[in-house]
Amino acid sequence: MTKPLVLHPDRLFPAQESTRAIARRLYAEVKDLPIISPHGHTDPSWFANNEPFKDAADLLIKPDHYVFRMLYSQGISLESLGVRSKDGTPVETNSRAIWHLLAANYHLFRGTPSRMWLDYVFSVVFGIDVRLDEETADLYYDRINEALATPEFRPRALFERYNIELIATTESPLDDLRHHQAIRDSGWQGRVVTAYRPDPVVDPDFEGFAKNIARMGEITGIDTSTYQGYLDAHRARRQFFKSLGATSTDHGHPTATTSDLSPQAAEKLFARVCSGDFSAADAETFRGQMLTEMAGMSLEDDLVMQIHPGSFRNHNQKVFKRFGRDKGADIPSRTEYVQALKPLLDKYGNEPNLSVILFTLDETVYSRELAPLAGHYPILKLGPSWWFHDSPEGMRRFRQQVTETGGYYNTVGFNDDTRAFLSIPARHDVARRMDCGHLAELVADHRLNEDEAHEVAVDLTYNLVKKAYRL
Amino acid sequence: MTKPLVLHPDRLFPAQESTRAIARRLYAEVKDLPIISPHGHTDPSWFANNEPFKDAADLLIKPDHYVFRMLYSQGISLESLGVRSKDGTPVETNSRAIWHLLAANYHLFRGTPSRMWLDYVFSVVFGIDVRLDEETADLYYDRINEALATPEFRPRALFERYNIELIATTESPLDDLRHHQAIRDSGWQGRVVTAYRPDPVVDPDFEGFAKNIARMGEITGIDTSTYQGYLDAHRARRQFFKSLGATSTDHGHPTATTSDLSPQAAEKLFARVCSGDFSAADAETFRGQMLTEMAGMSLEDDLVMQIHPGSFRNHNQKVFKRFGRDKGADIPSRTEYVQALKPLLDKYGNEPNLSVILFTLDETVYSRELAPLAGHYPILKLGPSWWFHDSPEGMRRFRQQVTETGGYYNTVGFNDDTRAFLSIPARHDVARRMDCGHLAELVADHRLNEDEAHEVAVDLTYNLVKKAYRL
Amino acid sequence: MTKPLVLHPDRLFPAQESTRAIARRLYAEVKDLPIISPHGHTDPSWFANNEPFKDAADLLIKPDHYVFRMLYSQGISLESLGVRSKDGTPVETNSRAIWHLLAANYHLFRGTPSRMWLDYVFSVVFGIDVRLDEETADLYYDRINEALATPEFRPRALFERYNIELIATTESPLDDLRHHQAIRDSGWQGRVVTAYRPDPVVDPDFEGFAKNIARMGEITGIDTSTYQGYLDAHRARRQFFKSLGATSTDHGHPTATTSDLSPQAAEKLFARVCSGDFSAADAETFRGQMLTEMAGMSLEDDLVMQIHPGSFRNHNQKVFKRFGRDKGADIPSRTEYVQALKPLLDKYGNEPNLSVILFTLDETVYSRELAPLAGHYPILKLGPSWWFHDSPEGMRRFRQQVTETGGYYNTVGFNDDTRAFLSIPARHDVARRMDCGHLAELVADHRLNEDEAHEVAVDLTYNLVKKAYRL
Repeated sequence: MTKPLVLHPDRLFPAQESTRAIARRLYAEVKDLPIISPHGHTDPSWFANNEPFKDAADLLIKPDHYVFRMLYSQGISLESLGVRSKDGTPVETNSRAIWHLLAANYHLFRGTPSRMWLDYVFSVVFGIDVRLDEETADLYYDRINEALATPEFRPRALFERYNIELIATTESPLDDLRHHQAIRDSGWQGRVVTAYRPDPVVDPDFEGFAKNIARMGEITGIDTSTYQGYLDAHRARRQFFKSLGATSTDHGHPTATTSDLSPQAAEKLFARVCSGDFSAADAETFRGQMLTEMAGMSLEDDLVMQIHPGSFRNHNQKVFKRFGRDKGADIPSRTEYVQALKPLLDKYGNEPNLSVILFTLDETVYSRELAPLAGHYPILKLGPSWWFHDSPEGMRRFRQQVTETGGYYNTVGFNDDTRAFLSIPARHDVARRMDCGHLAELVADHRLNEDEAHEVAVDLTYNLVKKAYRL
Repeated sequence: MTKPLVLHPDRLFPAQESTRAIARRLYAEVKDLPIISPHGHTDPSWFANNEPFKDAADLLIKPDHYVFRMLYSQGISLESLGVRSKDGTPVETNSRAIWHLLAANYHLFRGTPSRMWLDYVFSVVFGIDVRLDEETADLYYDRINEALATPEFRPRALFERYNIELIATTESPLDDLRHHQAIRDSGWQGRVVTAYRPDPVVDPDFEGFAKNIARMGEITGIDTSTYQGYLDAHRARRQFFKSLGATSTDHGHPTATTSDLSPQAAEKLFARVCSGDFSAADAETFRGQMLTEMAGMSLEDDLVMQIHPGSFRNHNQKVFKRFGRDKGADIPSRTEYVQALKPLLDKYGNEPNLSVILFTLDETVYSRELAPLAGHYPILKLGPSWWFHDSPEGMRRFRQQVTETGGYYNTVGFNDDTRAFLSIPARHDVARRMDCGHLAELVADHRLNEDEAHEVAVDLTYNLVKKAYRL
Repeated sequence: MTKPLVLHPDRLFPAQESTRAIARRLYAEVKDLPIISPHGHTDPSWFANNEPFKDAADLLIKPDHYVFRMLYSQGISLESLGVRSKDGTPVETNSRAIWHLLAANYHLFRGTPSRMWLDYVFSVVFGIDVRLDEETADLYYDRINEALATPEFRPRALFERYNIELIATTESPLDDLRHHQAIRDSGWQGRVVTAYRPDPVVDPDFEGFAKNIARMGEITGIDTSTYQGYLDAHRARRQFFKSLGATSTDHGHPTATTSDLSPQAAEKLFARVCSGDFSAADAETFRGQMLTEMAGMSLEDDLVMQIHPGSFRNHNQKVFKRFGRDKGADIPSRTEYVQALKPLLDKYGNEPNLSVILFTLDETVYSRELAPLAGHYPILKLGPSWWFHDSPEGMRRFRQQVTETGGYYNTVGFNDDTRAFLSIPARHDVARRMDCGHLAELVADHRLNEDEAHEVAVDLTYNLVKKAYRL
């Protein structure tokens, strides 16, 4: 017998009645505000080409590392889930069979945000009213595929239906941004902007680092074999990214290390990392030096700087060799900020026009390091709870551990940070509900007046994002 | 005036009425399920010999480091508590006097799990209905001793009354398992199995390490002076442990370090640590190498592997010299897993038939390291909140910090991990109540449907334990 | 339109009705108990001279780094807030203008303890019944200044109105304690005592360290150029501090490192750090050695020892150069205790007459390190949640993470640790409310009997402080 799929209107609100009533009132004011997505990983070609998505498995399973890593952790092979291999290993191509694997193992997601996001997509986006299980797998598969074939489910139509005011994608300096150009040229009014993510030309450990830098020289017509030329090439690409709407840069580093070398030392280090003959410490120092250089460039060109440190990428060697990056095997690690950021802060920490948004995968730093830093330094703001912590309990911990020292106004609203386009409204809705629930608890125990909580709820949902990302 | 001792039927359930009602319904389905205790430290001789326990102090105070460490922390000497000394220092032998010390200081345990476990034992097991304090100390002492003299309080009778389906003890490879053999020979139907805990022959810092390895050679008839012989002796002992019911091994290391040396390097390191002339780094590498070797043997013989890292053992030198191990002076320390486990995971992380259960005393790793690792690697599962964290708040943090990334099905149910046999049902009851309360909160804020919560509650209590420990 | 300022009588109590009712009953018993403030940074000259406070900005903004750091983090310069510069930079002198800056930015403090403390001071101390904002800024400024000019708002009158039974200040060994002497000589009955804070003569990295030691020699008439003389000078100053009421010492170190050097090694290290030619490791070892020496002296003279480790002082170089110490730029850092304290604990950990109170800015150690250490070692007690964590959520985490292993009786009640004299009752009130709310939750889910919770509430508020600080 099928079971009903119902999204309860009070979901995620505190259970206590009077607190829940406050949360409902707060949520009523923010639930219909437009979505601003200032940081994420959707594919701009979707909006440029506006082609239909292929099928349920191709859209919702194969590209979503949150989904397939959980199935993999329980012994279901990535091959059987149709995850494309890099090494030619054959993988399942029957999308219906793949869909059945998700349906048969949907209980694994109980209590996870993936479950909430998927149920939202099934219910709100596709209008399905029975729960996913083996019995309903075919009904789901057919219903989703039928919908995807209609004009209403093309990327631009969903963008508009989702009430997205702006979405930012993330591109490498080597990207020609042709899809962003095409979106502009198309006359479509949806605001899709890029963000400058220079990891491939900033991280000596990145695949093809030296070649990437040479390529950046070709693209810009600047000699990137000297440090000064290399920095100028960054300046040129940042300008180009700005011309296609970028208001921010993004830096995904293993640690938060920053450096502030003398020009001579930086020049020598640059030569060393470009030569390929460098130590792990060299690579770390160079990445750190580039964070400081990027902060300096942000002072020049007003791009907001985002730092996303602390992920041990591609931890599973076998999975990496067969399937490549972003396969659910990136594991957070302990991350230190107080010593690590000091060189950058000593140089630029008190600049009135610089804005650096810090993220973390190490929740222990919320109250110990990040809130005290952001509660003092004018350049620092705190990004929302990130990745594994983009979840109800993760958001609760973020607010409870950051607010008392950092306040609300040193935070920047929500980021969905996702490549799972369908789930974007689900993710923003979770954040809005959790923020309203959090504020309701402060109102209920008289730490905050309700009229102030209403202002804060709107600020967290909308105003702070626009301000922090200079949109 | 004596005060009543009442165990409230709703204890540990969320206070909010509708959430509590859900918790009650969930708990009703799991409260009477049999106890499976897949990891612990009860003494198999109890079940082999089935002799009566001696007296209240001998049973409930002297062997329980949770109890006497708290009294010690407030200035009550271990000598006065009758804790047996190693060095001949005389200790209190008057059990009634010892019992009075507990009674007079019972307020120290307010808010601790020891208080909840003891009250359960007093109330449910011994049927006492007044609170322990100085006034009731004699009543308690006499009542407990009278009960212990009756057949109903012998180990096997309690085992049956407690509805224990299976209990695992933990023995060294040097143990002859005679008590386990005796239990089997006795015809008694209680299932008591062993587990393989090789620390004395795996940890170069263990007292008598080299002698222990020689002894393992004598027991197995294998030449343990070579690395290959030493490994084969492990294989032989593991087989012997399996023959007496073992389904798991257990490894109590100071860190989670693993190593994967070449056979030559391992051979040399083995010679060095056996010679007694080795560095701290050698000892650490050898322990790490042995975790990887043990994982390889588990692939051969199907024993589930448990890793319990992060305890700084015998931190108090004076207490250790006078009283020896396990005297409440083992202190947790920061424990890293992401780098530490990589050698083992690179070698065996994707094996479909291997199962490694990770524990921690460092709660910061729940959301940062353990849930992401277990939510990806097929061989990894997470043991329950352990030792100091085997407590209501500890369990709450475990579920709140693990579930969103790791889900429920990468966890393995509850371990009591105790030598305090009397308290076993009290401990399992706390875990069942806390899990039901946790699930009730997810149902109450509509993150989980109640029918699913019922399934999960039964899985956490019973099914996952059997599956994870291959029982 | 002005908005009302109302302190709700149930503020900070759990929202759930039956739990709130328990909290109310507990709070009723402790709310009027006298304030004991065993550790803080008020200025003894206030109580010696009993002069009126100057004005609202001078009293409530300029000296309060909690307040001005938050404003600074949002781009408001310290100059414009009238914070006195060290380097002659002119700063705002118009106190009314400074007050307007706070008023216009008061929303930044939503959800922070500063907001709660200030509102308490405005409402309870000054009797203001409208909220602070730009519209009411002048009303506030005038009302506060009028009040400060009256006898009822002089320091001694407030001390009595606040029902302070005892307050401890903190002084350097080089201080002549003249204000303390003047208070005694004045015949006023308020108990104001000092505490021995030897950082300037114990920390080789302190400004003027060698000169400070020479000065200690002059003051004591003891030759401080030898290690033995230096230690004896400490003994002499400790005696002098005791004569003016001190019952404790206080140690603000970057880490919790302790050392136990041989007399010869200590002598040599002392010579090295006094010479100015020493390494960072020397400085760290010397500070650690002095913690152990101070513990030894506490055994001699019964002063309770407080250790406050883990603050990275003066993190912002530019702010430090212009404005000096204590400008909101002290950032917590990861702090280890288990290894760090071992030398001291090996030497003195089991002494029945020694008492060492540990604090932390790293909340991860509550359950992992501090509660297990304090739940075993007789000399150790845990200070309350400190500085950034002296907040409702910080207190909740402290109790939830410490109690199950350490119990209540290894804690020492509340410290306000403040130089913001006006806010002292506000801070103690927050602590009393949070403790009652915490206990109410344990009563509500039947982990604690209500009669026991009443005893604990009084102990946490009053009895444990007196006992721990030997008052």
